[in-house]
Amino acid sequence: MTKSGGRDGTERLVVIGGDAAGMSAASQARRLRKPGELEIVAFERGHFTSYSACGIPYWVGGEVSGPDELIARTPEEHRERGIDLRLRTEVTGIDVAGQRVRARAVDTGAESWTPYDRLVIATGARPVRPDLPGVDAPGVHGVQTLDDGQALLDTLARTDGRRAVVVGAGYIGVEMAEALIHRGYEVTVVNRGSEPMATLDPDMGRLVRRAMEGLGITMVSDAEVTELPTGDDGRVRAVRTKDAEYPADLVILGIGVRPETSLARSAGLPVGAHGGLLTDLAMRVRGHRNIWAGGDCVEVLNLVSGQEQYVPLGTHANKHGQVIGTNAGGGYATFPGVVGTAVSKVCDLEIARTGLREKDADRVGLRYEAVTIESTSRAGYYPGASPMTVKMLAERGTGRLLGVQIVGREGAGKRVDIAAVALTARLTVEQMTALDLGYAPPFSPVWDPVLVAARKATAKVRQGQPG
Amino acid sequence: MTKSGGRDGTERLVVIGGDAAGMSAASQARRLRKPGELEIVAFERGHFTSYSACGIPYWVGGEVSGPDELIARTPEEHRERGIDLRLRTEVTGIDVAGQRVRARAVDTGAESWTPYDRLVIATGARPVRPDLPGVDAPGVHGVQTLDDGQALLDTLARTDGRRAVVVGAGYIGVEMAEALIHRGYEVTVVNRGSEPMATLDPDMGRLVRRAMEGLGITMVSDAEVTELPTGDDGRVRAVRTKDAEYPADLVILGIGVRPETSLARSAGLPVGAHGGLLTDLAMRVRGHRNIWAGGDCVEVLNLVSGQEQYVPLGTHANKHGQVIGTNAGGGYATFPGVVGTAVSKVCDLEIARTGLREKDADRVGLRYEAVTIESTSRAGYYPGASPMTVKMLAERGTGRLLGVQIVGREGAGKRVDIAAVALTARLTVEQMTALDLGYAPPFSPVWDPVLVAARKATAKVRQGQPG
Repeated sequence: MTKSGGRDGTERLVVIGGDAAGMSAASQARRLRKPGELEIVAFERGHFTSYSACGIPYWVGGEVSGPDELIARTPEEHRERGIDLRLRTEVTGIDVAGQRVRARAVDTGAESWTPYDRLVIATGARPVRPDLPGVDAPGVHGVQTLDDGQALLDTLARTDGRRAVVVGAGYIGVEMAEALIHRGYEVTVVNRGSEPMATLDPDMGRLVRRAMEGLGITMVSDAEVTELPTGDDGRVRAVRTKDAEYPADLVILGIGVRPETSLARSAGLPVGAHGGLLTDLAMRVRGHRNIWAGGDCVEVLNLVSGQEQYVPLGTHANKHGQVIGTNAGGGYATFPGVVGTAVSKVCDLEIARTGLREKDADRVGLRYEAVTIESTSRAGYYPGASPMTVKMLAERGTGRLLGVQIVGREGAGKRVDIAAVALTARLTVEQMTALDLGYAPPFSPVWDPVLVAARKATAKVRQGQPG
Repeated sequence: MTKSGGRDGTERLVVIGGDAAGMSAASQARRLRKPGELEIVAFERGHFTSYSACGIPYWVGGEVSGPDELIARTPEEHRERGIDLRLRTEVTGIDVAGQRVRARAVDTGAESWTPYDRLVIATGARPVRPDLPGVDAPGVHGVQTLDDGQALLDTLARTDGRRAVVVGAGYIGVEMAEALIHRGYEVTVVNRGSEPMATLDPDMGRLVRRAMEGLGITMVSDAEVTELPTGDDGRVRAVRTKDAEYPADLVILGIGVRPETSLARSAGLPVGAHGGLLTDLAMRVRGHRNIWAGGDCVEVLNLVSGQEQYVPLGTHANKHGQVIGTNAGGGYATFPGVVGTAVSKVCDLEIARTGLREKDADRVGLRYEAVTIESTSRAGYYPGASPMTVKMLAERGTGRLLGVQIVGREGAGKRVDIAAVALTARLTVEQMTALDLGYAPPFSPVWDPVLVAARKATAKVRQGQPG
């Protein structure tokens, strides 16, 4: 029973979006179903497929030599595997009742309808472009796509600017600030919040701010940008806030992204409070048996808060694609949700978080105890041992782990994985004190910093208990 | 109701053994009970307390400057905290019925009885000294205690030997081989097994052997030592096996340790199949309400195999001490068991394991699927990405994770913690494929190597299933 009109009763899978989620889904479906069984058509409006947007700051910073290195799989490789990939082709409409999509060739403007039996929506995210005077002026750059990265590098090569202002102090803003310091810029980061990395509690974000200031980055907090004034040549020349103006030869917008769901909304598909598509555990769009969605255009269930959340991360997009491709290929897989893990690096500072921050717990009605400890990455006597701060939240009463934040140097960031697994398994902090973690002097003190935090959290939870 | 005859009804806690488990227990009990409530007496036959035996290879190798750095807490510090610590005093008998111990001053030979209300046995381990001709000759060294380390360093300083033979290729043997290479020795490691690091499956141990050979270490496999021939001066001059003789100016015994339980056995306390004391979850010696035991003299429950195991590791000893001290101090804590995690480092090679090896699973009747994958520590395009091999065992049918082994470079070792927590939580490899692990290019490929292994293991488990 095919509606796609495929030859010989072959069904057709249509994928909208040629990046991580979409092409992982296409590839996995292809692994399970031969071209004679399932035709796979993928539409991508840009020039590239399957690239690592997370790598763009390192490309700009010079640690990665070129955009090719960021491409996991080229269009040719996808085509060789039997995926009918149509680049520079934008899907402009989804006809859910008619099971077809309308696509437009970007270069010619020609439009046509393509029927589908199964549909994957992987339209990704679009960067937040604040509605500010000057936001479209030359010299103002986003850093979401490879094209963005190339445009920024072109600007860097062409101009002899000395002063850069980064708007936003999330992980992209922080990474870009470092990349520009490496390129010899004077860098100012203008941040709406009180501390950078709002994915951390402010007491932990403060450690990041100090490290950035130590690099020579000027950090401006609690600042709302009102305008990006331009010069006589039309180029951006400053970033203006309510209180001050910061001269800029270059402005980077690191304000984050929103789910790109205009197409899906127009088709009447369900979106959540954060603007992302809502799916079930098999990554099917809710209420639709033959439409899947994944990657930066969907909301995901946070297993700790019990609520949907928007977490645009390549690692989730790849997992979604794998699950979608398995299901669309006739197999069975689920994506149970996330616990909110993220790591990033600023110079030699490693920053990690998982689970809930204090304000997340407050918002969903969870009462908690919070503790913070200082420890080291290795046995204190072993060369290279470096300080590490671990903050841990545990539910009041039950002692269930709610979240962990870590700021330190080498060896700090990936320790968050211990907490990520513990959150998934709903361990209590007291159960965590007995975890059999790897110990040897080059790897850890005899009590791993995560265990030290768990011990302190356990004591605090027990203190609050009657008897 | 005190039997110790303490002043004013004060109870007395006696601790036998002044290293990690014993002194952690004493310190924790002291935190919970003031000197007026609980008298704490600790006997230690050596000169030192609370030191890191795991650090000795680094001291010999020169990465750590002196023994003081390996001492976590000095005798004076313990005494200041109100612990009556008696160094150079060996306990020679336990009278369980009479609730007292007999102690002998090592220097004077004077003996006396000390009554107790609560007793902690933390007698540690003794190195395996094979019953071989020449084993006690000058030039043959163990590396279990600070005294051993000092004796070895004295030998290294005094003699101008060039050839060292290490007997045994467990983690101590491997670490010592590297330390001696750093000191300019020609090093031969004579190993009874087919590959070094018998804590790994041989296919993973092979990777370690190749790395050691790459350092210039000569690896002799499947070799049984029969004699340590001595020269005219009485010093060791070679290591002889059934098939060959290896000239040696210095011999290191890295054959491992056994639980030191002769005292406990004499007192009629229960020991298990591996020679260690048997305890309950509160670390009480089975059948005894007021005697606890922990550290290198006890067996621990392996939560994966369901059987007792002997795992002499400082990290367990510290946890035992913490649990014992809490209980002996009137609180409540348990030690649920281990999953068998261990990490070590040879030059820049990181070696880790947790859970069961193939032969462990075979022995306890678990059927399994095993997979091995190659991946990298960071995104492939990010500088410093290095190869990593991950082997994973999953139970046939259920897919429950049974074990993980990792051999790689920087960033490989502590990834085993992910598996250690997953084993504790009894996750399946399919559940692991959805783990929300930290991802950013400097930390991991978009699929963490542990996830890649979990995916492959999931596929293999599913393959074996009907339907």
